[in-house]
Formats: sequence, structure tokens, C-alpha cells
Amino acid sequence: MNAERPAVTVLGLGSMGSALAAALLDRGHPTTVWNRSAGKARPLVERGARLAPTAWAAVEASPLVVACVLDYPALHSVLGPVAGALSGRSLVNLTTGSPEQANAALDWARANGIDYLDGAIMTTPPEVGDAEMMFLYSGSRTAFDAHRPTLEALGDPLYLGADPGLASLYDVALLGVMWSTMAGWLHAAALVGADRTPAVDFTQLAVRWLSGAVSGFLTRYAAQVDAGRYPGDDATVDVQIAAIDHLIHAAEARGIDNGLPELLKGLMERAAAAGHGADSFAGVVEVLRQPVEAR
Amino acid sequence: MNAERPAVTVLGLGSMGSALAAALLDRGHPTTVWNRSAGKARPLVERGARLAPTAWAAVEASPLVVACVLDYPALHSVLGPVAGALSGRSLVNLTTGSPEQANAALDWARANGIDYLDGAIMTTPPEVGDAEMMFLYSGSRTAFDAHRPTLEALGDPLYLGADPGLASLYDVALLGVMWSTMAGWLHAAALVGADRTPAVDFTQLAVRWLSGAVSGFLTRYAAQVDAGRYPGDDATVDVQIAAIDHLIHAAEARGIDNGLPELLKGLMERAAAAGHGADSFAGVVEVLRQPVEAR
Repeated sequence: MNAERPAVTVLGLGSMGSALAAALLDRGHPTTVWNRSAGKARPLVERGARLAPTAWAAVEASPLVVACVLDYPALHSVLGPVAGALSGRSLVNLTTGSPEQANAALDWARANGIDYLDGAIMTTPPEVGDAEMMFLYSGSRTAFDAHRPTLEALGDPLYLGADPGLASLYDVALLGVMWSTMAGWLHAAALVGADRTPAVDFTQLAVRWLSGAVSGFLTRYAAQVDAGRYPGDDATVDVQIAAIDHLIHAAEARGIDNGLPELLKGLMERAAAAGHGADSFAGVVEVLRQPVEAR
Repeated sequence: MNAERPAVTVLGLGSMGSALAAALLDRGHPTTVWNRSAGKARPLVERGARLAPTAWAAVEASPLVVACVLDYPALHSVLGPVAGALSGRSLVNLTTGSPEQANAALDWARANGIDYLDGAIMTTPPEVGDAEMMFLYSGSRTAFDAHRPTLEALGDPLYLGADPGLASLYDVALLGVMWSTMAGWLHAAALVGADRTPAVDFTQLAVRWLSGAVSGFLTRYAAQVDAGRYPGDDATVDVQIAAIDHLIHAAEARGIDNGLPELLKGLMERAAAAGHGADSFAGVVEVLRQPVEAR
């Protein structure tokens, strides 16, 4: 243990909570852990963690308490009885939930004199501790600034703003980008795979495509979304409606499920019908803001 | 003009064909151009291009002929009458089409003694000439190797294999990844925008997320797709089905169209029902290979 590193308590030792505690131990933080079933603490105790006999004792051990449990009902059942011990300390809540749940947790924390920082972990347990991985935080700027060096043990800490729901909102938004990208990539991998191209070969180009040209489009189109104007100088929705038919036909000929590209084509057709045919793909945001049922 | 650079002919002067000719001129290639309506050649002639009076004369001017016209019917109507002039030369066809159309073009080229290379341009006209941009080629390896230095004037030339349909297949596959990513990103931008986060702010993180963690997932999962086994060590389909509900609820509460995340959830539910609930997201490829109608 390193006496210069601040003490941290971790509540919840599922695979993510255990990864957080392990990363803190690796950086020399005196780390106290607690879990409803104590058995999960054993590997961490072997690495130098102190297992607290109760949640109350765990909270009292450190000025910074990190909570990472299954969901918000579990969070409140753990924290409710120890609110008195948390008073005057910083609570970093890395439990996955909705912006509304984060807002309610802030209200509860405020009522109990707890400095509340909400967070979202944008990686998987094995990658915790990698300085490249994004950890999103929102809520108390004071808590973020005070504990930033400690939070750097977990990944790259990014502060989004005082609204405590922002970390959760960015979390689901970024996961949505991920699922959409992964599904489009799997459809593409199935397509080229049907003509005997290994997914590994295709993916080298797909990764380059995403970090190069596609990221360039997103960056250019982001400014268009903010401006509410979508000049189609580079490629129009009308042109892309024609182009996606090539994808649909090629996939159909190879027996691949076309639900995803058909939906994407439908979004573009709705955008064109709403007057965005000569706009860039960014114009599709206008139909996403207007659900089908609401039209 | 630079006498050391080989002469090139460009057939078709739409916005993409004109960009190709301009990039060749910029690198000092003696460039002959032809277009059905000659007026489009004027800006290129002002930059040093030679306008051929007929397609036949254009083809005869260079050992390498680059064709980039609206579609394959237009391609065949332009090339059919000049097959005799093309004989013994290299034809690089950058017209957008299907793998089947590329295969048919190869057959036609072979029957006429033409060395045929098919290609796909993975960028927009303004970015042509940028060495970072991918140009995909398939078909004659001889033509690719012989003209590679010339093709480098247009972007980064990547040879995919002798099957002439590969460039078109990769083209639509990569565009599919792009549309899917862009739609997921627009959904996310609409979501965070509803809580007053500028798209430009969110997109900085989204771009980092795509080139970092998401590209890491794709690379790991590509090997799983090739192996046909999808160990869910990092995050299972079952866990992600629960997580996507957070996205759907957050978007619903903000009046965002949820067609895309609902479809993604449906794909994951079909994967879980097929026995891939404890697998990684890569297991979804199994349901994509089995269209709904075919089950």
C-alpha cells in the first residue's frame, strides 16, 4: 500500500465492482471493500484489500465511496441504512441506470449531506484500469475535482456537467451508437463472408473506415445537426437511397437478413418525403425527432 | 505536365469523374477526358486536361482508361462502341454497381482483350486525392501492379483479390456499416440534444468511442465470427438486451423515434432465443445469416 494515495471504499463486488477495486489496489490505494455476500471479496483481500464487516464500517473507512451494484433498487437498499455514515463524504455512483434514477439519487444524497457524483463506465471489466477507456461523470464538480487523481486509476475521467443524469444519458447514447455499429458490421461481415471473405480481413478495413472517413462524416454532420441545416454537398439522401438498394440486393442474393438496411432505407425515405432528399444524411435527424406515432 | 507520369484517360465527368481527373492533373499526369456532354470538361481543360473529340480518341490517348459514369447501363453504352480501341489497354472501372455487374464487365472485357480492374471509391468527390482515403480494387492483379503509382494519385489503393466483384461487395458492405453507424449516432445525437447537449460535444466522444472501444470489440468479435464461436466473456447478449431497454426508455421519454433500437433489440432477442443469450454480441451474426422469412 502507498500511504500517499487516498483511501477508497468500493461497495458491490460483482465483476465490474471487483475490477474497480482491483484497479485501485494496483495503483496503491488503501481499498476497503464490502459486498452483500462476503465470499466475492476473497480474491481482492488476497491482493491487499480490507474487507469491512458491515456496509457502515466500509463507508466509515474512506472519504470516497464508490458504489457499483446491480441496479438502483439494490443501490438504495445498500445505501439507505448507511446514509448517516455517508454524510460529509463523496459518493461516486457507477451503478448503471437511467438519467431519472441519477437525478433521484442526487436528491437523496443532497438531503443526507452527501457530495454526489454519478458515473458511467464505457468499457468492460477486463479493460478497467486502461487509461484509454472513458469513464463519464456528472453531478458534483467539487467531488470530481477533489477525487480526479483517484478516478484516474480506473480509466480516463471525463466530466460532462452538473446535471447528474448526463453520465447515464451519454452512456445509453454511446451504447446505442455501439449496438448500431456492431449490427451493421455483423450484417456486412455476413455479406462478405458469404463470398468467403474472412471477417478478420474485412474488419481491418471496417475499423479504418470507421475511424477515418465515417468519423469525418460524423464530425461534419454534428455541426449541421446543431445548426438545423444539412447541406448535401458531399452525398445526398436521394443518392444514398439509391445506393442502399445495392446493399439490399447483394445481401438478399446471399440469404442475409435485411431488416436493418430496410429500416435504414425507410428512415432515409421518410427524410426525403419530409423535404430532405437533397440534404446530407444528417437531415435524417429530423424524422428521428418525430416518432412515427406522433406524425 | 510531367513527362515522367503515365498518361491517363478519364471517361465520365460527373462530380466524381471530374474529381478523379483533377487529382490526376494535380499529380502531373497527362490527362485526356471525355464526357457525353462536352461542357463538363471545361474546368478540367482550364487546368490542363486534353478534351478528346470522341470516346474512341479518348481511349486511344492512354494505356490506362478510368471509367466513372452513372451506372452500368451507361458504362456499356459508352464502352461498347470503343471495345476495339480498348483492346490491349487497362480499364479501371470506378462506376458504382453490384458484384454481379462487375463479374459481367470482366467477362465482356476478357472477350475483348481488355485488362480489367474493378474499383470502388470509399470517399466523396471533395476528398479524392487525399492519400488517407481508401480506393478498393479487385480483378486483374497485373493491371493493379502496373498502374499502382498512378492510382495513388486518387487515394490509398487497396487490392482485394482476383474476383472482380470484391470491390463492389466491400463497397456496399462498408457503406452498410456507415449508414448503420450514422443512424445510431443521429439517434444518440437526438437523444442528448433533447437534454440540450450540442451534437458537436457528444460527437467528440462518439468518435473516440468508435475508434477506441468499439473498434476493439469489432476486432475481437471478427475472430469469433470466423471461428463460429462467440464466448461472452466481456458482455453477453442477455446483459445487452437489458441495457438496450435503458436506451429505449430514455429515448421514448424524450419523444425520439425508437425504430432502430427496437430492431436491434429484436435481433438480440432472436439470438438469445436461438441459444446465444450467454454469447457475445457477435452471436447475432447467426440470426442475420438466417432471414426471418426462411426460418
